[in-house]
Amino acid sequence: MINLGIIGYGNWGPKLVRNFMAVDLCTVKKVADQRKERLSLISSHYPAIESVQLNDDILNDPGIDAVVISTPIYTHYEIARKALGQGKHVLLEKPMTSNTDQALKLIELAGEKQKVLMVDHTLLYAGAVQKIKELIDGGETGKLNYFDSTRMNLGLFQPDINVLWDLAAHDISVLNFLINEKPYSVHSTGKCHTGNGVENIGYMTINYQSGLIAHFNCSWISPVKRRVILIGGDKKMIFFNDLEPAEKIRVYDCGYKYALNDKKYDIKVDYRTGDVYIPKISHKEALSTMAADFVNAIMKGTTPVSNHISGLEVMRILEASDNSMKNCGREVVLNHL
Amino acid sequence: MINLGIIGYGNWGPKLVRNFMAVDLCTVKKVADQRKERLSLISSHYPAIESVQLNDDILNDPGIDAVVISTPIYTHYEIARKALGQGKHVLLEKPMTSNTDQALKLIELAGEKQKVLMVDHTLLYAGAVQKIKELIDGGETGKLNYFDSTRMNLGLFQPDINVLWDLAAHDISVLNFLINEKPYSVHSTGKCHTGNGVENIGYMTINYQSGLIAHFNCSWISPVKRRVILIGGDKKMIFFNDLEPAEKIRVYDCGYKYALNDKKYDIKVDYRTGDVYIPKISHKEALSTMAADFVNAIMKGTTPVSNHISGLEVMRILEASDNSMKNCGREVVLNHL
Amino acid sequence: MINLGIIGYGNWGPKLVRNFMAVDLCTVKKVADQRKERLSLISSHYPAIESVQLNDDILNDPGIDAVVISTPIYTHYEIARKALGQGKHVLLEKPMTSNTDQALKLIELAGEKQKVLMVDHTLLYAGAVQKIKELIDGGETGKLNYFDSTRMNLGLFQPDINVLWDLAAHDISVLNFLINEKPYSVHSTGKCHTGNGVENIGYMTINYQSGLIAHFNCSWISPVKRRVILIGGDKKMIFFNDLEPAEKIRVYDCGYKYALNDKKYDIKVDYRTGDVYIPKISHKEALSTMAADFVNAIMKGTTPVSNHISGLEVMRILEASDNSMKNCGREVVLNHL
Amino acid sequence: MINLGIIGYGNWGPKLVRNFMAVDLCTVKKVADQRKERLSLISSHYPAIESVQLNDDILNDPGIDAVVISTPIYTHYEIARKALGQGKHVLLEKPMTSNTDQALKLIELAGEKQKVLMVDHTLLYAGAVQKIKELIDGGETGKLNYFDSTRMNLGLFQPDINVLWDLAAHDISVLNFLINEKPYSVHSTGKCHTGNGVENIGYMTINYQSGLIAHFNCSWISPVKRRVILIGGDKKMIFFNDLEPAEKIRVYDCGYKYALNDKKYDIKVDYRTGDVYIPKISHKEALSTMAADFVNAIMKGTTPVSNHISGLEVMRILEASDNSMKNCGREVVLNHL
Repeated sequence: MINLGIIGYGNWGPKLVRNFMAVDLCTVKKVADQRKERLSLISSHYPAIESVQLNDDILNDPGIDAVVISTPIYTHYEIARKALGQGKHVLLEKPMTSNTDQALKLIELAGEKQKVLMVDHTLLYAGAVQKIKELIDGGETGKLNYFDSTRMNLGLFQPDINVLWDLAAHDISVLNFLINEKPYSVHSTGKCHTGNGVENIGYMTINYQSGLIAHFNCSWISPVKRRVILIGGDKKMIFFNDLEPAEKIRVYDCGYKYALNDKKYDIKVDYRTGDVYIPKISHKEALSTMAADFVNAIMKGTTPVSNHISGLEVMRILEASDNSMKNCGREVVLNHL
Repeated sequence: MINLGIIGYGNWGPKLVRNFMAVDLCTVKKVADQRKERLSLISSHYPAIESVQLNDDILNDPGIDAVVISTPIYTHYEIARKALGQGKHVLLEKPMTSNTDQALKLIELAGEKQKVLMVDHTLLYAGAVQKIKELIDGGETGKLNYFDSTRMNLGLFQPDINVLWDLAAHDISVLNFLINEKPYSVHSTGKCHTGNGVENIGYMTINYQSGLIAHFNCSWISPVKRRVILIGGDKKMIFFNDLEPAEKIRVYDCGYKYALNDKKYDIKVDYRTGDVYIPKISHKEALSTMAADFVNAIMKGTTPVSNHISGLEVMRILEASDNSMKNCGREVVLNHL
Repeated sequence: MINLGIIGYGNWGPKLVRNFMAVDLCTVKKVADQRKERLSLISSHYPAIESVQLNDDILNDPGIDAVVISTPIYTHYEIARKALGQGKHVLLEKPMTSNTDQALKLIELAGEKQKVLMVDHTLLYAGAVQKIKELIDGGETGKLNYFDSTRMNLGLFQPDINVLWDLAAHDISVLNFLINEKPYSVHSTGKCHTGNGVENIGYMTINYQSGLIAHFNCSWISPVKRRVILIGGDKKMIFFNDLEPAEKIRVYDCGYKYALNDKKYDIKVDYRTGDVYIPKISHKEALSTMAADFVNAIMKGTTPVSNHISGLEVMRILEASDNSMKNCGREVVLNHL
Repeated sequence: MINLGIIGYGNWGPKLVRNFMAVDLCTVKKVADQRKERLSLISSHYPAIESVQLNDDILNDPGIDAVVISTPIYTHYEIARKALGQGKHVLLEKPMTSNTDQALKLIELAGEKQKVLMVDHTLLYAGAVQKIKELIDGGETGKLNYFDSTRMNLGLFQPDINVLWDLAAHDISVLNFLINEKPYSVHSTGKCHTGNGVENIGYMTINYQSGLIAHFNCSWISPVKRRVILIGGDKKMIFFNDLEPAEKIRVYDCGYKYALNDKKYDIKVDYRTGDVYIPKISHKEALSTMAADFVNAIMKGTTPVSNHISGLEVMRILEASDNSMKNCGREVVLNHL
């Protein structure tokens, strides 16, 4: 039996508790939050769980095997470092840390302590994303030409990370999950309308040497909610609309062929449009699969789908995005060791 | 009675003929196209219109008062120069020319010859865009924070201009029409998947010193057709979906207020969501209003809504976009005289 | 070469002219309408077509081979009778006549005169309906359980026929086209809100002995336009939305199985949901195929898809519907010879 | 403090428990269900609630003040009778009972015992329905001409009541809530495809002497889920789509005016279309307001919105619907005392 402590009981907290409570051989022992009104919510819903105000009540508790950290990003590193130091497995909400240095230090520490360090990119566990992975790996789409994501709504402004860190983090994790190629470079632009230097609108482009181009359009100030990813292969194209209740993925059997000529301005393009199909996908709650993946990693030593490496790769891109923004959108080339 | 000659009878040609035929005090006398199969289409639909293969049959015809140029962009300058030289009024399909130098020369020539030089940014005449202009000018939206457009479908690849010149041209003309501020700088990235150096996917950001940010996402290789513009003001926000048959505009009475604190990472944001309303708009065909505007400008000396200045302003931005793309997305600052 | 005369140049008139003009070996010679403003429209668009005010200018013209009748329904019988009497082929806009007696007399007369008598149920020629026919005939849907159509919008009130005659006529023709079984009985209810005894809202149910049930919901006073047909088979189900620009048909691989028990109130039902697919359909204009079908029938003696028998079958159901409405919605059993 | 017992822990059970637990001065003491697997669910989620297999453990418990009955309809009457007999307040899930006789007996018994007898028509408490009520009562729609509801999906077949009892019950309750006029007559048709005499497709029309007509289209075997109500007044029309996550109601400022003439077939109709607006509605969970309404009725003697009278009125219509179905769709006139 794995005894969990959860640090931070904000919007995501109740979902974490509910899903971890449902995992076999796992129980939530303690939840910590500084805010008394949050703690009282736990007591009323889950009288059996101990609620505490101090993180140390969890971090220093020898009866706790693993810690889930669901606090603002800027606090992740310190809490995770202490938790690993105390010999506990760690699950961090995304994005992993405030920068890649912190992420690398945690990875090193987890290695030393031989503990699981996992990052919760929940979307990787969604039935739709699993199905898209299956379609791409099965060769349905052919070579990928573009990945175009839009993620916008009104709210929730984050105080310490900009909208790309908050929202594009989801789509970047999906992009990395779907393709094997490493990104070559990143451009980002954006705008802060709140005077605190935190962009609430952000646009990012990721370039690949294969010709793939990825684009991200994120906003906290859109009146319409939108969560879509469009993926174009040279055989088929996929449209993923995460707000559709059931029909989340459409596979378009369409494309184009071109022939160039010696003459300038002479290109002949043939377009092909065919059937569309909407594959059935699993509607199992992604967070429950994620929770089970974490517990499994602890108990059986398996590598989680959303592991520390995938968490770090997302960080690298977000860090490059910040560098680009600070340099007026200049291209930032990523160095991969 | 204004006698028109139309040069180029491609996809847009039949619509031009139909709409100009319906304008009072105007008739289409000749249509020129090099392709015999296009000419035979005219003869069958409009036996009264003379169809010719050589542009000069129009340009040198003293019975023709005005020329509509609907040919590939790279031919615009030469044809328009000749037409103005022959003392004819000129309407150019968008975008105006291949570069701003050409545009400036045509503007100068039109001034010398005292002829109308107009660019057909049809979208400016659409009921939806007219209504959005009215809402913004009437103060409904308040100060604008963003303008976010997406224009994508499968096809029609252009041989001589990239997807931003082809598609974003529409949205840039709308943006310029709606706001009075001059843009400060432009970033663009994109990708060509056809080996001819013409980007079929393009992303552009335009920055303004007021804090407004404009973004454009254009693609010729999307399986889904999408033509939307989202406009965010600090009072209200507007969603314009040009593919909706009737309900093209939604006005959202929503927004946010924020309060900063001395403490880092401490921002309090209040969100407000209210009613949405869908104003009734005119469904008159935009092209017919554009055609009448051109004829009016010739006959009465009025300034068309979509005039040579608005055509030139779109060119400036597209040229800066090209410069940015050639320089790996670097910010290109626009100089306005 | 078939010389056509078209009687009635209302909303549908220009479409008929355009499409018949485009059929090989067929030309529109004359168009008749009592309203001068309608005739002047023809002259301006099609100077080569003679426009006349009197129907007899067409009916008595020996140079006219075939007549298309696009006038109010209550005039159909007299005009068609004269036309057949003059040895002309006849195409009637739907619904065929004001009652089945008239329809039967016309059919008899056409037989005597050996002329084509056809009814224009255009929807039968639509790519979507052709595809649905193909799917059902190919066994994809299995045995049909229901057919559920909704056709509503604001306007156009008809003066002489109620909303079921006007709108359900389309869907009944499709239903008859798709299945081979004869209907057993009809129920209809409705309401007139305009004081002239012509129902502007109508609901009809058609029962079949096989267990198929068909329902029709029609309205001229709905603020939303809707044109959908849902078809449920025991293998697959089809959703046809005629307002979708491209993706008009969705085929759902879903269903249910049930097991009854001896115990009352004990039924076990298993539901199955699978992929959805959206077949590519032809987007050729249905009216052009209909026009060619009429010309073909005249020239080669083929039986049109939308022939006088299918026209009559629609009439039988509409007449039963009227009987049901007049008798407070009582079931009206259809007698088939 | 009101101590509740809940009888029946099916699909709706967990929602009832969660919502009643959240009502002030109310607690769920016991839940009864014959199925052990359902009881074990309660124990795991709510260890503080006692779970029992026998209804009598609740009905005979003097510590329980009120009973919520969420079992198949055919069991409602017996359980409710016992509960009232034991002096407990009763909340019945909709529809109230198997017939109006049972409903009338329970109402009489509740009167004798001076206990609250309430029926849970949850939809009446939804923000959208409350807003529609406000719009109609405020005169926005003018005189109502029609009410047209569609409620369909795949599943859940009920064993003892047909699809109109199951699904139309919601819409009938809304209709009765919105208008004051008593219905005049009912027609229903439908079809059973499962051999047990329980219709899985049903169509019902309700006629009113004022000219209002109401229609209901219900199905358990539709591949698409649909929950819409269209309401047409002579001033404005309302479209309510309960599947829209936020924009559930659209108010159309449209209509028509007509002028009749002495001449037959001469009606002149003018159509008017204007703005559409989407009012903001409360997104509070309807079931929580319903739960509070029940507790309030017990504690303060208030009349619940969804009370025994509204429950009975729904029953009367459903009973007439059954009579109509059994008589081949014949009109059944309702007698109101």
